[in-house]
Amino acid sequence: MPQLQRRAGFTVWLTGLPCSGKTTLASLLGAWLPSAGQAAEVLDGDVVREILSKGLGYSREDRDLNVKRIGFLCRILSRNGVAAIAAVVSPYRAARDTVRDAVRAEIGDRFIEVHTDCPVEVCIQRDTKGLYKRALAGEIKGFTGVDDPYEPPQKPELALKTHLETPQESLARVIRLLQERRLIPAGD
Amino acid sequence: MPQLQRRAGFTVWLTGLPCSGKTTLASLLGAWLPSAGQAAEVLDGDVVREILSKGLGYSREDRDLNVKRIGFLCRILSRNGVAAIAAVVSPYRAARDTVRDAVRAEIGDRFIEVHTDCPVEVCIQRDTKGLYKRALAGEIKGFTGVDDPYEPPQKPELALKTHLETPQESLARVIRLLQERRLIPAGD
Repeated sequence: MPQLQRRAGFTVWLTGLPCSGKTTLASLLGAWLPSAGQAAEVLDGDVVREILSKGLGYSREDRDLNVKRIGFLCRILSRNGVAAIAAVVSPYRAARDTVRDAVRAEIGDRFIEVHTDCPVEVCIQRDTKGLYKRALAGEIKGFTGVDDPYEPPQKPELALKTHLETPQESLARVIRLLQERRLIPAGD
Repeated sequence: MPQLQRRAGFTVWLTGLPCSGKTTLASLLGAWLPSAGQAAEVLDGDVVREILSKGLGYSREDRDLNVKRIGFLCRILSRNGVAAIAAVVSPYRAARDTVRDAVRAEIGDRFIEVHTDCPVEVCIQRDTKGLYKRALAGEIKGFTGVDDPYEPPQKPELALKTHLETPQESLARVIRLLQERRLIPAGD
């Protein structure tokens, strides 16, 4: 039975502290890519949790399982030509590397790790959902950046100082990288 | 910001007793569709369980959650132009209808329910994994078709008597339906 080569998509994995700008950037990218003819799906950690990982908590084991599930989605979407954009704290390096390896094993070098690299003090100032406040007050335990570690990527494809540039500037840098890697057509 | 219309895929949801032929048909369809230029992803209930629903059991609540998660995947894939092919017992009508409604709410009438309608006696004879034997011996509790109910679809898009036709014949009927509904291009 003849089988066509499936067009490969890719995965953009946004990792960083809570309130470091992941969701904002993911939304911008998820809106922009279709305008360039690329189907895209934003997988927001908080949203996905509601469905795929209901019942999971924030222990290391549960976090890793959540990351693994989102990684599974990225893999399925990417191998079917979709750009999967994950926006998830994913604080542990090992779990992120496992996802990267799984995606690469299947569709090659089409996994882009983007670190929204923002000092925790700035994230605390933003605190869009008031969660840092509650964590600092001891009402939430195991909150990344407060009493649970965030392990920054050592060699991300892109590190964005989201406190020093606008979301639109960050978006432009991601787009440029995707073009350089020929994951999307180059602009003019 | 201009946004292109995303090409919609569709969902083929195979429901039926264990060993009624879901996985066989899903595999055939999943191999055939790409040859017709349609990206396709098979979501096999047993396989998906390993990743998305690890820890879930076979209570009604857990089964419904598993179906809901696979439905979520179908929705995401379908709205990105992929044919999602679910092969999952999904014994409860209400849970299946919830998935159908969720898919239809998003991408319209592109949800095809296919019932692999095979008498339980034949399924027991096949018993490819030896699970019926264990269930009948009382070693597995809540096994669909033995001591847990299967609620057949009342108006499936297609009901296949998989004990009276070959998998290739079933495949041909599914393909014909997809063509009639213009979900894939008509053959010659």
